[in-house]
Amino acid sequence: MKILFIGDIVGSPGRDMVQTYLPKLKQKYQPHITIVNGENAASGKGINEKIYKQLLEWGAQAVTMGNHTWDKKEIFEFIDHAPYMIRPANFPEGTPGKGLVFIKSNGLELAVINIQGRTFLPPSDDPFRKVDELIDEARKRTNLIFVDFHAEATSEKQAMGWYLDGRVSTVVGTHTHTQTADERILPKGTGYITDVGMTGPYDGILGTDREAVIKRFLTNLPVRFEVKKEGRTQLNGFLVDIDNSSGKTKKVERILINEDHPFFG
Amino acid sequence: MKILFIGDIVGSPGRDMVQTYLPKLKQKYQPHITIVNGENAASGKGINEKIYKQLLEWGAQAVTMGNHTWDKKEIFEFIDHAPYMIRPANFPEGTPGKGLVFIKSNGLELAVINIQGRTFLPPSDDPFRKVDELIDEARKRTNLIFVDFHAEATSEKQAMGWYLDGRVSTVVGTHTHTQTADERILPKGTGYITDVGMTGPYDGILGTDREAVIKRFLTNLPVRFEVKKEGRTQLNGFLVDIDNSSGKTKKVERILINEDHPFFG
Amino acid sequence: MKILFIGDIVGSPGRDMVQTYLPKLKQKYQPHITIVNGENAASGKGINEKIYKQLLEWGAQAVTMGNHTWDKKEIFEFIDHAPYMIRPANFPEGTPGKGLVFIKSNGLELAVINIQGRTFLPPSDDPFRKVDELIDEARKRTNLIFVDFHAEATSEKQAMGWYLDGRVSTVVGTHTHTQTADERILPKGTGYITDVGMTGPYDGILGTDREAVIKRFLTNLPVRFEVKKEGRTQLNGFLVDIDNSSGKTKKVERILINEDHPFFG
Amino acid sequence: MKILFIGDIVGSPGRDMVQTYLPKLKQKYQPHITIVNGENAASGKGINEKIYKQLLEWGAQAVTMGNHTWDKKEIFEFIDHAPYMIRPANFPEGTPGKGLVFIKSNGLELAVINIQGRTFLPPSDDPFRKVDELIDEARKRTNLIFVDFHAEATSEKQAMGWYLDGRVSTVVGTHTHTQTADERILPKGTGYITDVGMTGPYDGILGTDREAVIKRFLTNLPVRFEVKKEGRTQLNGFLVDIDNSSGKTKKVERILINEDHPFFG
Ligand SMILES: [Fe+2]
Ligand SMILES: [Fe+2]
Ligand SMILES: [Fe+2]
Ligand SMILES: [Fe+2]
Ligand SMILES: [Fe+2]
Ligand SMILES: [Fe+2]
Ligand SMILES: [Fe+2]
Ligand SMILES: [Fe+2]
Repeated sequence: MKILFIGDIVGSPGRDMVQTYLPKLKQKYQPHITIVNGENAASGKGINEKIYKQLLEWGAQAVTMGNHTWDKKEIFEFIDHAPYMIRPANFPEGTPGKGLVFIKSNGLELAVINIQGRTFLPPSDDPFRKVDELIDEARKRTNLIFVDFHAEATSEKQAMGWYLDGRVSTVVGTHTHTQTADERILPKGTGYITDVGMTGPYDGILGTDREAVIKRFLTNLPVRFEVKKEGRTQLNGFLVDIDNSSGKTKKVERILINEDHPFFG
Repeated sequence: MKILFIGDIVGSPGRDMVQTYLPKLKQKYQPHITIVNGENAASGKGINEKIYKQLLEWGAQAVTMGNHTWDKKEIFEFIDHAPYMIRPANFPEGTPGKGLVFIKSNGLELAVINIQGRTFLPPSDDPFRKVDELIDEARKRTNLIFVDFHAEATSEKQAMGWYLDGRVSTVVGTHTHTQTADERILPKGTGYITDVGMTGPYDGILGTDREAVIKRFLTNLPVRFEVKKEGRTQLNGFLVDIDNSSGKTKKVERILINEDHPFFG
Repeated sequence: MKILFIGDIVGSPGRDMVQTYLPKLKQKYQPHITIVNGENAASGKGINEKIYKQLLEWGAQAVTMGNHTWDKKEIFEFIDHAPYMIRPANFPEGTPGKGLVFIKSNGLELAVINIQGRTFLPPSDDPFRKVDELIDEARKRTNLIFVDFHAEATSEKQAMGWYLDGRVSTVVGTHTHTQTADERILPKGTGYITDVGMTGPYDGILGTDREAVIKRFLTNLPVRFEVKKEGRTQLNGFLVDIDNSSGKTKKVERILINEDHPFFG
Repeated sequence: MKILFIGDIVGSPGRDMVQTYLPKLKQKYQPHITIVNGENAASGKGINEKIYKQLLEWGAQAVTMGNHTWDKKEIFEFIDHAPYMIRPANFPEGTPGKGLVFIKSNGLELAVINIQGRTFLPPSDDPFRKVDELIDEARKRTNLIFVDFHAEATSEKQAMGWYLDGRVSTVVGTHTHTQTADERILPKGTGYITDVGMTGPYDGILGTDREAVIKRFLTNLPVRFEVKKEGRTQLNGFLVDIDNSSGKTKKVERILINEDHPFFG
């Protein structure tokens, strides 16, 4: 089973990239399932129902989230009716939404898990213990398991990769909005990358207008962080090919589309 | 002027990689100046005089540091007599060492600056203001300026890159021990990468024995973090080619050597 | 010289307490100068010009601030014309406002300094080095120096107290909204308290509506933090008596007014 | 039931204060049960078996801990055989030790709970959810429940106090080593104080030698933090009187013994 994952989609520049390139990527790579991280899809902060549905229409089968899950109030109205929306599983019990979803493809099922780190991020339940529980649950139905670990620290992300090596098919990191070059297949067969990166403005800072971010670092004065609307854009993605019977990853490939790395179909 | 930079060297596995591959890299790329980050060169924590001298013997012209600068007590005895040792310039005034060094090559001079971020790191003086001062100082002698920004957060690192675009030749990030895939030349001519990555164990977590790191995340109990001594190793580097007259970067290239990415001479 | 200091005034409940009790406190203690911390005076977040002027009308001679200085946009319009408004001196250079003000009383001058800590707070310039500069400046005019150190960590606050012992008249801490019971005169004559506490709601959490704060801790969901408007209120203050010639503090006294500690005139 | 609680005992100066004053405090206040926080009892960092036993011999019935629980390696050898040692209950499952202990007195039982905050402290399980579980467990045996909430942030501590109001007898805060002046009985009968403070050196910084702490703030260079051995000492405590049938607190009293606040028997 081939899975295409698209890193944090930021605002309309990010959505435009998905709309434009997802069909081309599908044609090129022929993934069975496409998963996108949508925590910044609505103006850089959270997601709304319209955008969630658009992402599915444009070809995604699942939308993962992260620390920006609750940024748009509208989320509370539709998250519990959005079967393909996956928010970090280790949010406190009783929080709306769910952290594990099964996606069908060709008679097979892929378990998709979203989980959030704790280093440099707000408190949450233990991601390592929580992921153990979800893997137990997933294994009852499938051995194809894909984990989006939304975390800041490279140590925590690599720890999760190695902790899950051989127990899940793939662990991708998200959240830093910067693609890492450390994609690999770990010794027991788990595909891994510390961060898939970000889909949106190419000349912003993590997708945000850079004048505002620089002003903030220079002055600590309040600034409005807005998605950089004009200018060049990029798409960051990751492709894995999983062996259907063993659940092990056979191949990993980083995807980077921007003016310096043009797409070849 | 071509500059080769080698990311955080971790312990003896990292030093071995430098000793083995630096000659080969020099032969292949013919850099005029080689800079290495040595903050983890001595057992993962700091550096000592012997190792500092070894790195120079093996072919480095300058050694940059970071938040681990003071980990080995011996540093206080030799840092002020180590002309090619560069520690973050925005450490408090009166701290031993220096943050700006000039390296000569073929009648030209390269200013090398080391500076540290503040997000998710201990307090220090403002890196943005401090780098402005150092650039003013450097410009009096040269327009070839290389900055190692040792920082955790991708936002702060990218902010520094854009802040310095057109004012320095190159900004490389270090500290996360994970190479990023976002190398580029910014619009005004500054070469940039968010993190060059790490040189050392390939199967540890940031170079550290992974059982210890995972145990820490699972239990929060005290563990001894030690460099993973056995097993496969890697080298992470970055090559830039700077135009001597304009000081702008003409070419950037990531270097990654490990079992999955073998070196071709 | 007797100085009355009133801890972080929170919203209208805090302002009402000042309006009601400041005249009574003045009658009882006969302070020469009254200083209030106003960083939360406007609906818990920042201050506006109307409230700044009210605080002066009600009897304050100076208003200190803290990390909430910029919360109300209006601040940028009047801070540079507000001679008795004092914001943390170690904000980045070029930031509006000032961190040192001189207040006259009976032919004497009191230097009032506001400075902010860095532990668990956003980056700022080194408060220890900055306060040294301001003390040098103040000493040219007076040896009566009052410091409001706005900081979170008890270690940083006590370090500042001991660092300044014998060099300033008084160091009061603010920011935690919780009065400490460690008021004392340090060996070289500096009056000290780790935190003066908060003036506002008595049954909130740091002045904020407690249901919202508890919900946040339980769920990490977004909540609106609002000043607890109804119910019992409190005033937290601190009185020091400084020897006019030596600048040393002769007497310190905590002030606590709430239903459990009624005011006796 | 009267309960005497003694705040974080720091090193030998702290232990000496306990040995000297605990008998006097017992004579004066006649507590039925004495609880001490011992997380810094051995040279400021952790505890060992000898000191644990001493504290019991000198008159304590229970020893609570905190973030320094594991600082001395010896702890792992005796914690599971130390019936009156209580470490934060929300440490990860499987961690040695326990967070709830029952202490008998006159045919009654007091449940003593130790729990740790998460704001500005390392990740741990949710303290609010965990304390709910422990209260359920305790209530099966007694309605006399005493909670030591070891936490940094005043907001988290006050949130815990209000969250538990009416459900436990008393919530005391520890960890900041600075006694707060906000002791009170909350509306539904829970005795509360944000921090009981510290028992040890009177002229250190949180008990630590102050030159080292100040040097650290000024230089960020590595320093050895050691308990200030010489000089004046203090004891910080808290006394509550609980109604045996309702479990509600009838009286709270801060205890402060130092040269500025001499003990009167
Ligand atoms: Fe994101
Ligand atoms: Fe995120
Ligand atoms: Fe490093
Ligand atoms: Fe580092
Ligand atoms: Fe405040
Ligand atoms: Fe504040
Ligand atoms: Fe402590
Ligand atoms: Fe503690």
